[in-house]
Amino acid sequence: MNTTTPDALVIKMLLNAWHNENKRITDLITNLTDEQLAAETAPGRNTGMYLLGHLAAVNDNLFKLLTSSERLHPELDVVFLHSKDKSGKPMPSATELKAYWNEINAGLSAIFNAMQPTDWMERHNSVSAEDFAKEPHRNKLNVIISRTIHQSYHLGQMNYLKK
Amino acid sequence: MNTTTPDALVIKMLLNAWHNENKRITDLITNLTDEQLAAETAPGRNTGMYLLGHLAAVNDNLFKLLTSSERLHPELDVVFLHSKDKSGKPMPSATELKAYWNEINAGLSAIFNAMQPTDWMERHNSVSAEDFAKEPHRNKLNVIISRTIHQSYHLGQMNYLKK
Repeated sequence: MNTTTPDALVIKMLLNAWHNENKRITDLITNLTDEQLAAETAPGRNTGMYLLGHLAAVNDNLFKLLTSSERLHPELDVVFLHSKDKSGKPMPSATELKAYWNEINAGLSAIFNAMQPTDWMERHNSVSAEDFAKEPHRNKLNVIISRTIHQSYHLGQMNYLKK
Repeated sequence: MNTTTPDALVIKMLLNAWHNENKRITDLITNLTDEQLAAETAPGRNTGMYLLGHLAAVNDNLFKLLTSSERLHPELDVVFLHSKDKSGKPMPSATELKAYWNEINAGLSAIFNAMQPTDWMERHNSVSAEDFAKEPHRNKLNVIISRTIHQSYHLGQMNYLKK
């Protein structure tokens, strides 16, 4: 059994990193017009709307990975995870999508705040107990690390939407 | 005795995340032609060459932040940190820059491998002992977190260099 006790400070550092990247995206989309958000991030590349929906769907999946809570917007997956951009499938409006983004992140913040250091070292819900015994790094904290990096990856692209 | 000290697993997770992002960039630049690397990542935006030099310079600064070792390529700062892209200042060639990138990252890997878990929780070299006493999150591990995120941010943009 893994007896690692994580340092509360390190968890705080990682949650701060998550919130920083999350807030940079929120600040960006708050300052973009709907037209800017609907534009391609570069010629022939994903639009801002698609990337925002993609990030919202990935974040919404965290409810399932980290908790036994229901997801808030599982309907996003079909357009933003299982389809490429410009699939023709109906998308929420920019106003709706921004509201979902904020709602999902507020829900996640509440969950993160309630989690104790040892909770973060538990297996996430898509790894089996058997695999986790062999690969103890597949814990909930590692999900936050990878999703923080993922947010930053697409933020770099979405920043090209700014004039 | 438990073979892991308290933070060893988390440190391993974070170093893995660093190496993953680092390798994604290395793989990308290995597969791009010199012309592709010299192109703008999007119209009017930074070129791949500039972003690679920028990332190499930021990584090279880690020698100073984390160790008492000399930096390998401090000359990169004037072009890639203190100047914007297209400044007209002389740049290394793509071949040279790729070689520096690999050299810097290999040097950093050797340092990371030699560091013990407690070393990572020490203050980094640009924070004073007084400030660190008040802000213990300003440690060496936090530098790795922020630089991993930074690599991913620009990787998202550099991936637009691919056809």
